[in-house]
Amino acid sequence: MEPQQEEPPAPRELGREAGASAADHQAVRLWLRLLSCSTQIEQSIRALLRSHFGTSLPRFDYLAQLNRYPAGLRMTALSAHLMVTGANVTGLTDQLVAEGWVERVDDPSDRRALIVRMTPAGKAWFERMAVEHERWLVQLLGGVDAREMEQLHELLGKLRRGIAAPPG
Amino acid sequence: MEPQQEEPPAPRELGREAGASAADHQAVRLWLRLLSCSTQIEQSIRALLRSHFGTSLPRFDYLAQLNRYPAGLRMTALSAHLMVTGANVTGLTDQLVAEGWVERVDDPSDRRALIVRMTPAGKAWFERMAVEHERWLVQLLGGVDAREMEQLHELLGKLRRGIAAPPG
Repeated sequence: MEPQQEEPPAPRELGREAGASAADHQAVRLWLRLLSCSTQIEQSIRALLRSHFGTSLPRFDYLAQLNRYPAGLRMTALSAHLMVTGANVTGLTDQLVAEGWVERVDDPSDRRALIVRMTPAGKAWFERMAVEHERWLVQLLGGVDAREMEQLHELLGKLRRGIAAPPG
Repeated sequence: MEPQQEEPPAPRELGREAGASAADHQAVRLWLRLLSCSTQIEQSIRALLRSHFGTSLPRFDYLAQLNRYPAGLRMTALSAHLMVTGANVTGLTDQLVAEGWVERVDDPSDRRALIVRMTPAGKAWFERMAVEHERWLVQLLGGVDAREMEQLHELLGKLRRGIAAPPG
């Protein structure tokens, strides 16, 4: 992990050859900074969700996904969206059903299957959280202006398209 | 989490008012993309460390930190650098000591305290991994060119400085 403060380059780094190895090093530095930003924002959002709504980031993400599919989703589809294991989604579903925010219903397209969807109470609760979540992000990301935000969005989009093929 | 493919904006999003709420929404979109990039790169690095070196990302990060301090570090300092709990660092240290990559020695500045440092074998192993780790990152981040990488590094630096004061 990268320390919070900028530091002068260590002698080992200054001693590197220019050219290819300098380009390589740039990728490592960018990755550490990307990870540092992402970790700090995520930790802030986790802490804010906990203190303001007594809930966790996985639960918020779960509801955010369901919110995009008012008709509900199968567990496998939800699991793929959330990039977590089926077991985690099952555990989260049990909790959220017990609290009345989501419900399991028959899949109208396949009566042997179940889908999960938000209850009206769950939807109302999520919407209250989403408003705050958005406000927190506007503040957390306030170090860059609208134009820079757009640049970042574009550059990260390009970066992400390049990640698709993992190295061997 | 954001899906892999770009999607047209949902009707709900098109229906939003322009102005402040559009700016807010931009912060959420940027955060989801940042998280998506970071998660995908991290998952690739985890998988590559596992398949090529039979090791984990926390172990690699642990050694990467120690590598920056050849004289060794106290556990508390190491823990702060790694942003993990003391318990995790203790567990990792036990494993890495058992495998011969790190050692616990008396702190020369305080004989009641211990520091951990890499063994020569640990240093040699880490250096082999670091070369590959750098090569993987160059490939994973290859979607953007050197100039764009520099722009991203700068913009993320600005973003990170703004994160320092978390919203209430």
